[in-house]
Amino acid sequence: MTASAIREILKITQEPSVISFAGGLPAPELFPMEAIKRAFDTVMEKYGPASMQYSTTEGHLPLREWIAGQQGVPADRVQIMTGSQQGLDLLGKVLISEGDVVLVESPTYLGALQSFQPYLPRYVEMPTDEHGIDIDALEALLKTTKAKLLYAVPNFQNPTGRSLSLERRERLVELTNQHGVIVIEDDPYGKLRFTGVELPSLYHIALRNAGGDHDKVNVIYSSSFSKTLVPGLRDAWVQASMPIIQKLIQAKQGADLHTPTLNQMIVAELVEDTLPKQIEIVKKAYGERAKYMLSQIGQHFPEGAHYTVPEGGMFLWITLPESVNTVTLLSEAVKRKVAYVPGSPFFALGGGENTLRLSYSSANPEQIERGMKALGETFAEALSK
Amino acid sequence: MTASAIREILKITQEPSVISFAGGLPAPELFPMEAIKRAFDTVMEKYGPASMQYSTTEGHLPLREWIAGQQGVPADRVQIMTGSQQGLDLLGKVLISEGDVVLVESPTYLGALQSFQPYLPRYVEMPTDEHGIDIDALEALLKTTKAKLLYAVPNFQNPTGRSLSLERRERLVELTNQHGVIVIEDDPYGKLRFTGVELPSLYHIALRNAGGDHDKVNVIYSSSFSKTLVPGLRDAWVQASMPIIQKLIQAKQGADLHTPTLNQMIVAELVEDTLPKQIEIVKKAYGERAKYMLSQIGQHFPEGAHYTVPEGGMFLWITLPESVNTVTLLSEAVKRKVAYVPGSPFFALGGGENTLRLSYSSANPEQIERGMKALGETFAEALSK
Repeated sequence: MTASAIREILKITQEPSVISFAGGLPAPELFPMEAIKRAFDTVMEKYGPASMQYSTTEGHLPLREWIAGQQGVPADRVQIMTGSQQGLDLLGKVLISEGDVVLVESPTYLGALQSFQPYLPRYVEMPTDEHGIDIDALEALLKTTKAKLLYAVPNFQNPTGRSLSLERRERLVELTNQHGVIVIEDDPYGKLRFTGVELPSLYHIALRNAGGDHDKVNVIYSSSFSKTLVPGLRDAWVQASMPIIQKLIQAKQGADLHTPTLNQMIVAELVEDTLPKQIEIVKKAYGERAKYMLSQIGQHFPEGAHYTVPEGGMFLWITLPESVNTVTLLSEAVKRKVAYVPGSPFFALGGGENTLRLSYSSANPEQIERGMKALGETFAEALSK
Repeated sequence: MTASAIREILKITQEPSVISFAGGLPAPELFPMEAIKRAFDTVMEKYGPASMQYSTTEGHLPLREWIAGQQGVPADRVQIMTGSQQGLDLLGKVLISEGDVVLVESPTYLGALQSFQPYLPRYVEMPTDEHGIDIDALEALLKTTKAKLLYAVPNFQNPTGRSLSLERRERLVELTNQHGVIVIEDDPYGKLRFTGVELPSLYHIALRNAGGDHDKVNVIYSSSFSKTLVPGLRDAWVQASMPIIQKLIQAKQGADLHTPTLNQMIVAELVEDTLPKQIEIVKKAYGERAKYMLSQIGQHFPEGAHYTVPEGGMFLWITLPESVNTVTLLSEAVKRKVAYVPGSPFFALGGGENTLRLSYSSANPEQIERGMKALGETFAEALSK
């Protein structure tokens, strides 16, 4: 089961007859299309041909300044990226040499593994539970491995939907700082919390510990407008210490010169008014969809199916008894016109054949009901064998 | 003189008082802004939220099909890229391992060196003259080096403006094929020929030699809409044999998932009507500007300044007597309110301190006259010392 196999599944599940909980697609019916059209008109009027010209590698200054204001960082420490994926790729390029140990959650975001893989890291998995990374286990790993990097999604993780608790955040930052490990904090979903209390980012904990010195922070923060606004414009950013930002600028120049000018200008026009409203709309919708999907698990899934309860984001995670293989089961599910992503590709070192990821973000109640019933039947049949 | 030093110069030359022949910027006053606005409206109406959603890594199918039709290749061998720069980066990523020999023109496109550098190639320079690569020298190099790749810009090369003659194209394709060398043909300017006769691409010569079998072609072709339409949308493509395309798809997934959806859709709306008209407009303007710049060389430059006469594209190349260092001379030029790019960074292995690149694409006659006069004075003073 490779990444390209997943892509093939995603292609199958584009058929309208299949209810797909597989993709991590934001709900398109919520996209603020009218505001985007107005933003385009404003950009045309304000910038004219400059919106279609080459621009700086660092990114559109008004957008960087807005992000800087929101995040409480200097604007020269904000590098615009062509989607979070590019941020991960370039961080891999400037930070990972062959054989470097990279600590990743077990399971972790598949796209990060794909981005880092060309730079030939050695992955070490950090065990996780319902509160995220097991910090005692991490402490032991830091002593036994010469880890260079730690990659984590602290909020509503992809694929599990779990979040790292406050106490663990504090300890993670302290321990990695002690051991000289650079942390990549990937936070595309943080603003999409529909229940529970917002937690500080690893970046801000590290900044506080460093007495407010942005160049002494061992955390690199990555986020995106893909999940809060729209993904198709491919606008994201990385904030980091100056030495890392300087390396990223150079790497980005070689990678695509700069993120498309128009797209950054459109997003910059949307951040003040549209974005906060849009976040409320998305949070409300995803919260309802998650709640409904969870209720359907109770109703349709057989005993022995365990699941996570996300407080935000787009995903939840199912663990079936070990006898079940979710890769082979996928074709059974698709026969019943429902799709998911098998969990095993999210494990850097393999395993997890009895797990799977469900996305509730782009399904309506009728689809959730029908799809979860079909999934429940698929699992029940597998368990009865 | 590093790439980042050039970036700093480009920043200085953004001051309106400086006439810049340094940047490789297309002329913004020629951008088809009204057509772009109409294309945006059409895309909104035709695709709605799908224009803002994630899309396939390979690219927007109507755009790929149009390119395929133009180029006479199957659409599944066309991979959309976020600018040509990304094509070069990903080709470097999938083709270059540490120490692989990459043959490059002397001088060559600086951006290609920047894209390939992270993959640690060993560069070998091919000597060039007024007809491009010296093929006898190439033949000798192919025998003595175990070259893996050859990178070339056959049409109106960046930085020299020179083109590879037909006879040399034929020999280059034959020789590289014999020696099992993969050729990356970078062709952003090919459509911008304002004088002389269009020549077949290396790709099409190789295709003919391979009896029309696209998977037996040892040439990878890269081109872009940046110089013919607008650069700020960052839309380009690579066409190659299926095994290479498959590797590129995987690499691109890790690099940025896909090129922004909206941008590809806008370009797809423009290719039929606007693009051919736009190419005529740009060709005419650049042809006039090149001609005028060349006339000003005759009028203002001191004896001993040699120059290329481009048949298309955006650049010409000046070679001064060896006593002159164009890097140190740049600050003198900027004092006289004119800027260029020193030639040395375009040489993979150093040298060329007495050379420089001029771009005529985005200067008006008055600027060309004033700028070339100031440059002539700068050079004359340097030579009189």
